[in-house]
Amino acid sequence: MISFENDYIQGAHPEILRRLAESNMEPLSGYGSDPYCERAREKIRRACGCENAEVYFLVGGTQTNAVVIDAMTKGYEGVVAADSGHIAIHEAGAVEFTGHKVLTVPGDNGKINGNELRQYLQGFYQDENHEHMVFPGMVYISHPTEFGTLYTKEELKQISEVCREYEIPLYLDGARLGYGLMSSGTDVSLSDVAEFCDAFYIGGTKVGALCGEAVVFPGKAPKHFLTSVKQHGALLAKGRLLGIQFDTLFTDELYFRISRHAIEMAEKLKEVLRDKRLPFAWESPTNQQFVIMDDRKMEQLREKVVFSFWEKADQNHTVVRFATSWGTKEEEIEELRNLL
Amino acid sequence: MISFENDYIQGAHPEILRRLAESNMEPLSGYGSDPYCERAREKIRRACGCENAEVYFLVGGTQTNAVVIDAMTKGYEGVVAADSGHIAIHEAGAVEFTGHKVLTVPGDNGKINGNELRQYLQGFYQDENHEHMVFPGMVYISHPTEFGTLYTKEELKQISEVCREYEIPLYLDGARLGYGLMSSGTDVSLSDVAEFCDAFYIGGTKVGALCGEAVVFPGKAPKHFLTSVKQHGALLAKGRLLGIQFDTLFTDELYFRISRHAIEMAEKLKEVLRDKRLPFAWESPTNQQFVIMDDRKMEQLREKVVFSFWEKADQNHTVVRFATSWGTKEEEIEELRNLL
Amino acid sequence: MISFENDYIQGAHPEILRRLAESNMEPLSGYGSDPYCERAREKIRRACGCENAEVYFLVGGTQTNAVVIDAMTKGYEGVVAADSGHIAIHEAGAVEFTGHKVLTVPGDNGKINGNELRQYLQGFYQDENHEHMVFPGMVYISHPTEFGTLYTKEELKQISEVCREYEIPLYLDGARLGYGLMSSGTDVSLSDVAEFCDAFYIGGTKVGALCGEAVVFPGKAPKHFLTSVKQHGALLAKGRLLGIQFDTLFTDELYFRISRHAIEMAEKLKEVLRDKRLPFAWESPTNQQFVIMDDRKMEQLREKVVFSFWEKADQNHTVVRFATSWGTKEEEIEELRNLL
Amino acid sequence: MISFENDYIQGAHPEILRRLAESNMEPLSGYGSDPYCERAREKIRRACGCENAEVYFLVGGTQTNAVVIDAMTKGYEGVVAADSGHIAIHEAGAVEFTGHKVLTVPGDNGKINGNELRQYLQGFYQDENHEHMVFPGMVYISHPTEFGTLYTKEELKQISEVCREYEIPLYLDGARLGYGLMSSGTDVSLSDVAEFCDAFYIGGTKVGALCGEAVVFPGKAPKHFLTSVKQHGALLAKGRLLGIQFDTLFTDELYFRISRHAIEMAEKLKEVLRDKRLPFAWESPTNQQFVIMDDRKMEQLREKVVFSFWEKADQNHTVVRFATSWGTKEEEIEELRNLL
Repeated sequence: MISFENDYIQGAHPEILRRLAESNMEPLSGYGSDPYCERAREKIRRACGCENAEVYFLVGGTQTNAVVIDAMTKGYEGVVAADSGHIAIHEAGAVEFTGHKVLTVPGDNGKINGNELRQYLQGFYQDENHEHMVFPGMVYISHPTEFGTLYTKEELKQISEVCREYEIPLYLDGARLGYGLMSSGTDVSLSDVAEFCDAFYIGGTKVGALCGEAVVFPGKAPKHFLTSVKQHGALLAKGRLLGIQFDTLFTDELYFRISRHAIEMAEKLKEVLRDKRLPFAWESPTNQQFVIMDDRKMEQLREKVVFSFWEKADQNHTVVRFATSWGTKEEEIEELRNLL
Repeated sequence: MISFENDYIQGAHPEILRRLAESNMEPLSGYGSDPYCERAREKIRRACGCENAEVYFLVGGTQTNAVVIDAMTKGYEGVVAADSGHIAIHEAGAVEFTGHKVLTVPGDNGKINGNELRQYLQGFYQDENHEHMVFPGMVYISHPTEFGTLYTKEELKQISEVCREYEIPLYLDGARLGYGLMSSGTDVSLSDVAEFCDAFYIGGTKVGALCGEAVVFPGKAPKHFLTSVKQHGALLAKGRLLGIQFDTLFTDELYFRISRHAIEMAEKLKEVLRDKRLPFAWESPTNQQFVIMDDRKMEQLREKVVFSFWEKADQNHTVVRFATSWGTKEEEIEELRNLL
Repeated sequence: MISFENDYIQGAHPEILRRLAESNMEPLSGYGSDPYCERAREKIRRACGCENAEVYFLVGGTQTNAVVIDAMTKGYEGVVAADSGHIAIHEAGAVEFTGHKVLTVPGDNGKINGNELRQYLQGFYQDENHEHMVFPGMVYISHPTEFGTLYTKEELKQISEVCREYEIPLYLDGARLGYGLMSSGTDVSLSDVAEFCDAFYIGGTKVGALCGEAVVFPGKAPKHFLTSVKQHGALLAKGRLLGIQFDTLFTDELYFRISRHAIEMAEKLKEVLRDKRLPFAWESPTNQQFVIMDDRKMEQLREKVVFSFWEKADQNHTVVRFATSWGTKEEEIEELRNLL
Repeated sequence: MISFENDYIQGAHPEILRRLAESNMEPLSGYGSDPYCERAREKIRRACGCENAEVYFLVGGTQTNAVVIDAMTKGYEGVVAADSGHIAIHEAGAVEFTGHKVLTVPGDNGKINGNELRQYLQGFYQDENHEHMVFPGMVYISHPTEFGTLYTKEELKQISEVCREYEIPLYLDGARLGYGLMSSGTDVSLSDVAEFCDAFYIGGTKVGALCGEAVVFPGKAPKHFLTSVKQHGALLAKGRLLGIQFDTLFTDELYFRISRHAIEMAEKLKEVLRDKRLPFAWESPTNQQFVIMDDRKMEQLREKVVFSFWEKADQNHTVVRFATSWGTKEEEIEELRNLL
């Protein structure tokens, strides 16, 4: 059985396991105060081209989104997101649980658009009743999006300008950031992200780590952010587990190398899908590919390959997702070719 | 430098690392649905003598407390705890963050007493204004407590009886449960805990795991508990990381063996402290030992040994804590003897 | 200056003021335990044809919605509402503040449709990821809606059947319930509302009271509802203020009589608007009328008449709202005719 | 039956009812934007000697406490209060409901002490674990306290100085502020309150109004406070109801005159209680008097007089409370003398 189910089906990149084992018995202080965390922070700052960035390590993506959004918005503010945004749909209401509404704007294959964002914000402040409404206090985007799509540098810049005009922070969910950065489908670099966003996270869970997301505040972190993290139940006692993983991922560009591998595998996967004449539901330049399958064919394939249901296309067809990752092997793609 | 700073200064028991590495490239589904999680659940059920228990894996202790308490109490209810309880002091208000008040009763070296609990509950319902007050909707205890102390089976039974009389669940925080179970200072067994409590967790973070706590509901879990876990940002994508760890800990009694080791080391540590005439702040039968040190001596010792500040005893003395763990070596205790 | 700004521009029906004055110096216990509250409850039960209903008095509409929704949903549940629903837009996120997401479905001039609701719920449970999503735990409708539109008995019954099929409560926001009940645009009676809904409120603020909404649970109220009300800061000390008002409103059918007056005034208003060839933005059978005005005309009229901006229709036209109420006088409508 | 049950047993001061009736049919805009609210704000500013104060009107005390505390603290902060504080005990956890912990310090008959407060705050910041604890983000006091006791100007100043030293706001719950200001038991004036506090409220509910509390921010109100009020379900649609009441109370010093009356009645009441040799549980210089009664005598008296149970004193004695108010008549006190 081969699996393209998602990008977190395997453990960690072996180098991470090796370094966890190597450092295992060293006594270290907890909560992110150990030297591995410090080294990882330093390397991340350098990779972001942002010497003064504050960096924190959290365990998972939903958690990170909820903590960052709660810490950066005022009580009466909500967060603007695409209607398909992960926080709007698939996080079990973790943001609302903290008291903040997710304010949705229509997305275009997962992306929001600077002009539409400006119109939304203008419309809000022009509405005579806006004091009875939830203030837009932050903008949330993801890169890649839920649809595997990417912003261009120009698009990201436009959104950022709107946010700065309205003095609200821009936050980028980078659960799959590596795959976005290594795709040829965008000119956005990590330092662009750091330049245009007020907060973002570099996803580890989906890019080679056992768990862990590195939150980066290019400017200043919210005051007493560590306490907010603790209050949300998100502070890991053995911070070393996160520090060592990110230290490893940002040593010798491992994060970028394994991301590039996933993109290369995705390119090969696209070739296979194209050759087999499976229509793409939409164009994705990253590690997730979405195709429309005949339901009978889908059921047959499921006996030998794991992949994900996305949504029904019509009565007899389904949009399905195949994902590559740092751990995908070329042989697996060849095997898929044979099975299709 | 030797360290008795706490019981989470090291990584994981080597057997855990070995099994993580061994299973690393197997593709597995996420969120706790993999076979390792299932096997770990099965072994935990057996260890608890509780075939129908529902078992969930979370990442950390504060998180576990907040999720379980929130899921098991109604909106207008709070949770009763000793005034020294971890949830009352050292979790940055994570319980209040979910909207529930921590209702404190005076603790006796961290323990609450069945009779006093009954008086508290009686008093509450006799108070003519109690509809204007926070209803006691759950009782929280920890075993071992913050002070390293333990309940006897009889004490635990009494608390449980009061809870059942008032129809509120009893929840036991077992961050250090292994150390409690292996101490000769109590007759409480794991199946006693399962019998007397409505929910409890078996701590992994402080007992040999990289991270992870196993929440056990001997009866039924709260409805849609997985969604509550997700909503609190506490659902780990790679559930395997927790499943494999608990599967390992509950194979060949590893959890109990390493806990017993920590207790043996604590016994030797107590001998050293006694021999060195350091007065104990209170008697602890578990892996944390609390002694009163002269401040100058404390400062000298700090140059060579890591241990924790607990509280000031008087102007020139401090209560300090030395903790052993699964990873403590006998040589380290001998070295401490030489340094004292 | 005449005003059609909204239906809460005036104080209370004079009979209410008279009875407040009459009972003013009687010493009464607080928090809704006085005999006026009890009498009002009894009369409301009778008006609803629902002898065992539990009735509570709260102060305002947003407050009532937030308290009832929070008390009737579990932590992991949200509330389904039309995308134009008051709770979705104009309550400053009061529902999200309590941790619950407002799950929107497209509304048709403010109404939701039983079939679309069933599709939404079916779709939710068919979605393989639904455990990672907010469970629909309640359905919220308003009658009249934000658009002044009304459900028919058949439509209400259908929604109710879907809710019962999925075992989730149906809650009706009756901020303007009187105006809905007295309109000829629907066959829904108060006892129908009590039959089809699990909770609803009879609006006082907009129908003749100084403040106050009567929450009716035709079956059982949520356990310890009074404490939930207090916890939300919604328990009025001098419950008499609400009891006396609702006792008055439900004596000699005052509530219905003054509602009917508002509807009669709305009919006359419609005639005037029709005669003046102002196109209706949509058909409303209740006390709020929405017409499209040329912006210059609108600005002129504003010098002599108060009415509300609703939304821009196009570059030179605006949808505006004229509202009648229990206090509207026929002369005012004639004056409007002269001014148009 | 005469009643000393509490200070909100009657409706409103007749002058308030008169003015409500007088203005009843005037059409006015809602939510506090009407001229009565504006006039009331202006008069309150003048009474406080604080021209730039921002003034908001809310409906009740628990609501006001929850909204103000939530709006003035950051997410990771709690509020320091005496252990007997109303927010700590008798508000059904309304503060915790907003996510903030009530941090208690021992009170002395309801009062906190500047020195002990400083020690608490010093202790907090000296605790090496304080980042894992709830930050003290505000100080809550009440004047009069739950025990009817009062701060002196010097005591209030000391608390204020500590707050300013630690840069946290001081908030005064003035549910019974009028009775405190008119008592001879303190030298604190309304302008002192405005000078020493960052926020406070002037209680209406217990001092002559049907409902309503006037929140005063001597400096600046929290940003978008109106939206926070709405979000908490605390924004009254017919703001006129509050505006007219406070306008009346602050016209010709009505608020102070009726408060003085209650204090005079309390003085007479004390004489009666003293004459009847009922021991005072503690000395209260305000409108609430607490005496210890033999339980049999208490039961007898209850047949003719309403008063409140406070707490058991010993097996056969109870502390009971007699409250006077703006509405208490001298005859009632004479009648009590005859009945005792």
